[in-house]
Amino acid sequence: MLKQLLFLFWLAFSAITLAEPRATGDLGLIIERESGSALIVNTTEHKQLARIENLGDTSHASVVFSRDQRYAYLFARDGGLSKIDLLQDRLVKRIVQAGNSIGGAISQDGRIVAVSNYTPGGVKLFSADTLEPIADIPAEYGASQRSKVIGLADAPGQRFIFSLFDAGEIWLADVSDHQKPSLEKFKNIGKQPYDGLITPEGRYYVAGLFGEPGMSVLDLWHTEAGAKHILPNYIKEDEKLPVFKMPHLEGWAMAGDYVFLPAIGKHEVLVIDSRTWQLVKAIPVLGQPVFVRARPDARQVWLNFAFPDNHQLQIIDVKDLAVSNTLEPGKGVLHLEFSPRGEQVWVALRDDNQVVVYDSYHLKELARIPAKKPNGIFFSARAHQIGL
Amino acid sequence: MLKQLLFLFWLAFSAITLAEPRATGDLGLIIERESGSALIVNTTEHKQLARIENLGDTSHASVVFSRDQRYAYLFARDGGLSKIDLLQDRLVKRIVQAGNSIGGAISQDGRIVAVSNYTPGGVKLFSADTLEPIADIPAEYGASQRSKVIGLADAPGQRFIFSLFDAGEIWLADVSDHQKPSLEKFKNIGKQPYDGLITPEGRYYVAGLFGEPGMSVLDLWHTEAGAKHILPNYIKEDEKLPVFKMPHLEGWAMAGDYVFLPAIGKHEVLVIDSRTWQLVKAIPVLGQPVFVRARPDARQVWLNFAFPDNHQLQIIDVKDLAVSNTLEPGKGVLHLEFSPRGEQVWVALRDDNQVVVYDSYHLKELARIPAKKPNGIFFSARAHQIGL
Repeated sequence: MLKQLLFLFWLAFSAITLAEPRATGDLGLIIERESGSALIVNTTEHKQLARIENLGDTSHASVVFSRDQRYAYLFARDGGLSKIDLLQDRLVKRIVQAGNSIGGAISQDGRIVAVSNYTPGGVKLFSADTLEPIADIPAEYGASQRSKVIGLADAPGQRFIFSLFDAGEIWLADVSDHQKPSLEKFKNIGKQPYDGLITPEGRYYVAGLFGEPGMSVLDLWHTEAGAKHILPNYIKEDEKLPVFKMPHLEGWAMAGDYVFLPAIGKHEVLVIDSRTWQLVKAIPVLGQPVFVRARPDARQVWLNFAFPDNHQLQIIDVKDLAVSNTLEPGKGVLHLEFSPRGEQVWVALRDDNQVVVYDSYHLKELARIPAKKPNGIFFSARAHQIGL
Repeated sequence: MLKQLLFLFWLAFSAITLAEPRATGDLGLIIERESGSALIVNTTEHKQLARIENLGDTSHASVVFSRDQRYAYLFARDGGLSKIDLLQDRLVKRIVQAGNSIGGAISQDGRIVAVSNYTPGGVKLFSADTLEPIADIPAEYGASQRSKVIGLADAPGQRFIFSLFDAGEIWLADVSDHQKPSLEKFKNIGKQPYDGLITPEGRYYVAGLFGEPGMSVLDLWHTEAGAKHILPNYIKEDEKLPVFKMPHLEGWAMAGDYVFLPAIGKHEVLVIDSRTWQLVKAIPVLGQPVFVRARPDARQVWLNFAFPDNHQLQIIDVKDLAVSNTLEPGKGVLHLEFSPRGEQVWVALRDDNQVVVYDSYHLKELARIPAKKPNGIFFSARAHQIGL
């Protein structure tokens, strides 16, 4: 008995002294689309730390992080909102908060998680701590109709901004008073905004339009001027190809003063000057671009493609505004994510059941990490960025 | 005996289950200038977690972080380089690597720590893991003279960049091969570069000149063009006031396309357009500015002042390029640091022995944290930023 106790004591003591504490600056989450699961990974050692299960329908999912980078909040297609503990490798809580959701955001102070929903259309706010509901913003317009909400992002000054697909409106919600968000609405911003981004410093909100050519831009330093319609003539209807996959949330990149975005239904990446919001160039690429991401040093932009070109990646040299490289990393390239200083890029290969890690300067393969049908990669450094 | 063992067992077991793991995304280090110590703080809870001692001469110190945010590397005036474990509240190692040093940087991949030295003039590279020396870059020029090195920053592509004060040169070191850094030297860049910064995406390196008016800019995308002398006429010698304190490393800010920097020996902040490197405006302020920092949303720039105005802070509204507020936080305002999304700003008050935390949007005081003669504040989110 004494011996056994001593052994137990030794065991417990070892656990204290041996358990290597985990820092959270180099962690990430890889979403597995068909199994409702996600991998916690370490980007310094290129390895899987844990698999978290029971996350619902992850066929379309996005992630934000708490300001201490301990928790990841995952927004799933089925309206599920999950809180994952990256230090203890566990699902802390999961709620199903709506019937069909598409994205989410976390407030500047880290206390509120917002989810944008298709059904019922609107935005819901939750406590980042407990996931208890705080407030509801139904996307009502016209005669009590409700609109799908898309392009939700956090904005500086404890605000959220989002677009109403059916209504053609942009709403800006100030949630400084948690229980009573105050709303500012911008109407007639264009037909069917299908996605939105906020520029990295949080000044401009840009909504892509599906129902008509062009985009809508709102300058948050001059909201009194309203939203401005830009590039109204950049594409004629008859030039459009059938759209195989809609360009995605976050599928836009800024490098320096230039915004790079996938042209809908065309084999082009559009380059727009963010000072004037004029088109600088349409860069021909090999297929219909989906995600367009800037390397953090702004020198390169990487992009993937819709079917049937989804086994390839292209790299644009920002200096020349032209494609400099084409890679074939594997089958079903669905997403890519740069490490915060840009030395690595991780690429999700759904149909190869793996994620490949490149040295983004020498295009050298550093590792391949097994993952079940991966479709999204999110690194914890997003915690510190406005709009991510 | 059995009872005691059971108690010990219970104690050990409790320690395992109760010890709350610590995330590293919301940590920071406050330097205490006269006691050779630093506080580890948490920015969510506004509290001190630990005090680390025996850091040498911290009267002038700067800090960089490992890519996982677990370790802080502190560069002290006396040539000391200390590695601090933010998870276990301890000094892992301290070496004295030179006689007199002024700053440091960490490589893009996080594996190399570089220190710039006055005596003997040059840069030394160390393993971030062990602090063992890797390579030495003596700043030799002319007839085997050695120059003081200042303005050291990491640059994309596993490089470091720095200036030679006595030689008037900028050197770019590629450390991809750790043991054998390859050097590119830019000569005659101007007299006495006294400080340098790299823009946030890592494209432009700007060195301030003390020996003549103006600054020197090197475009790392076009190194073949060499460094360019800018603002050669911005100040006439007879307009200069006595300089009470040299504007500091990192004492420059970028907000959008504008660079804000303290004019040497004048009561002005200069605004420069980073597209053209022309002066946009000289904003009058109440004293000689020292640190000029942009709020992460680029809407405001905050600055502190040299003696006798070092009890005040001013805020510039970037929209208007004019001072919008003046604060009097306390005595001996030496440094300020924004939280990564900008909702908080922490201000070091040396002569009040405390750090004050503001809500940077409502200018509301959130907390005052005791600290012994604080002179520097560094948050762990710097781990993810180029040039910090």
